[in-house]
Amino acid sequence: MLMTPVCSMTNQSIPITSRANARVKALRASFRGNACNAGDLLGLEGEHLITEALRSGLKLHTVFIREASHAALERVSVGAAEVLILTHDVFASAVETASPQGIAAMVEICPPDPKEPSEDPVLIVENLQDPGNLGTLIRSAEAFGAQRIYATERTVNAWNPKVVRASAGSVFRVPVLRMPISQIAAEAKTMNVVLYAAVAQAQGVESVLEIVFAPKCGLMIGNEGAGLSAEALALAQHRVRIPCAVESLNASVAGSMLLYEVMRQRTAHKDDLQ
Amino acid sequence: MLMTPVCSMTNQSIPITSRANARVKALRASFRGNACNAGDLLGLEGEHLITEALRSGLKLHTVFIREASHAALERVSVGAAEVLILTHDVFASAVETASPQGIAAMVEICPPDPKEPSEDPVLIVENLQDPGNLGTLIRSAEAFGAQRIYATERTVNAWNPKVVRASAGSVFRVPVLRMPISQIAAEAKTMNVVLYAAVAQAQGVESVLEIVFAPKCGLMIGNEGAGLSAEALALAQHRVRIPCAVESLNASVAGSMLLYEVMRQRTAHKDDLQ
Repeated sequence: MLMTPVCSMTNQSIPITSRANARVKALRASFRGNACNAGDLLGLEGEHLITEALRSGLKLHTVFIREASHAALERVSVGAAEVLILTHDVFASAVETASPQGIAAMVEICPPDPKEPSEDPVLIVENLQDPGNLGTLIRSAEAFGAQRIYATERTVNAWNPKVVRASAGSVFRVPVLRMPISQIAAEAKTMNVVLYAAVAQAQGVESVLEIVFAPKCGLMIGNEGAGLSAEALALAQHRVRIPCAVESLNASVAGSMLLYEVMRQRTAHKDDLQ
Repeated sequence: MLMTPVCSMTNQSIPITSRANARVKALRASFRGNACNAGDLLGLEGEHLITEALRSGLKLHTVFIREASHAALERVSVGAAEVLILTHDVFASAVETASPQGIAAMVEICPPDPKEPSEDPVLIVENLQDPGNLGTLIRSAEAFGAQRIYATERTVNAWNPKVVRASAGSVFRVPVLRMPISQIAAEAKTMNVVLYAAVAQAQGVESVLEIVFAPKCGLMIGNEGAGLSAEALALAQHRVRIPCAVESLNASVAGSMLLYEVMRQRTAHKDDLQ
């Protein structure tokens, strides 16, 4: 056993010292954002995200600990997963951030099943490019009860590690379905979902302060620079703006506000009925 | 003139080819996020941000064009500023992003003067670390009419180029004042501003759906991981939560929603009076 660089669980006493080690290369690759199908390996950093993945039912494939960071292991339910110790240098070569906790993992992704259509709102994002924005929107979607997210095919991959981090784990629970905008609109029609396109300030567009959202609504958010495409706008039943003193809001803020506003209206309506 | 690597305006026909050129080094340094006082040089990329800086009264120091990207110059009012052409390689070595437009500039920062205290809300951020979050909040602050932002001293520098980019130029117009939380609370008291601390879900905390914000209000947002400190919480008159199904929202989303909610209440109140 002595000097064996790779072995499972706590048996491994000598850290992996080679950046070219096969497992280290796999970890590095798992942060590249290419995971998309069930079973693909996704790299995660930090106790919080790993714990979120586990509680959402994802399977832990391998856990990587930076030497002298064993304490992190005590707070994560590793189960039967393989645990490897890496030197500081090798660990840093494979992960994305400064990683103060010294723990990373590869998990097998398992895109959540979309629930049956209900009166929860759906969120539709078209060609969103910034991983932080998509992740934040996924987090807000879970926060305000959106049952599913549709993303056009040119939107950043929801399993990009930066999206996963910004989602604070919500991506493990809210299904993100990728398809062309025309197909999204067709699905919305089948479910009797009314589409609201978020647009920047413009004459003749309904204000979110005045609109009453339909019981089943789809909130459409466009690309950071260009907004929604002409095709997407044509598919929406309503255009809605958030009144404000700037040209446009950050895309994740605008989407989160629409989700919040739907929740607020429904809560207020419930109070009216009581 | 021929072969002179550095000269002003359109006289320069031969691009700068050295990454060690003094001006190139200055550009690189201007992206490090150390600018904080009036006159310090801040690096900006892209036509939009440079135009925003100019329309907000900032002074252009030097403009940098990537060779074969002269078209960008036609859309920016360069005025009397020095214009330098850089090779692709040298340009890429100095700027932060992929920079599709091939234009960057150094501007002299000029922190905006805080206006007289009014009934506009103020935003207070404590130890916010993520530049994207601070920038997004500055953008939302301008959007919803906040007259000033207070930031504790351990908050990321508002003139960090990533903050500036995420603010979409709002940082050129909304004053961000840095001081300890105790001094922020003291200033708020002098201005008769009532402080509302944003907290995660907890028993006994007022919901944003029920609270009626005071005419002069200060909205407090804490650090991304830790939230507001015990000291900050003790200084607030109210604790407020945004009801949602996750542990917490993204800090910039939470702050933007409180700003939106204040605007919404005031607009609704105005309608009541009419």
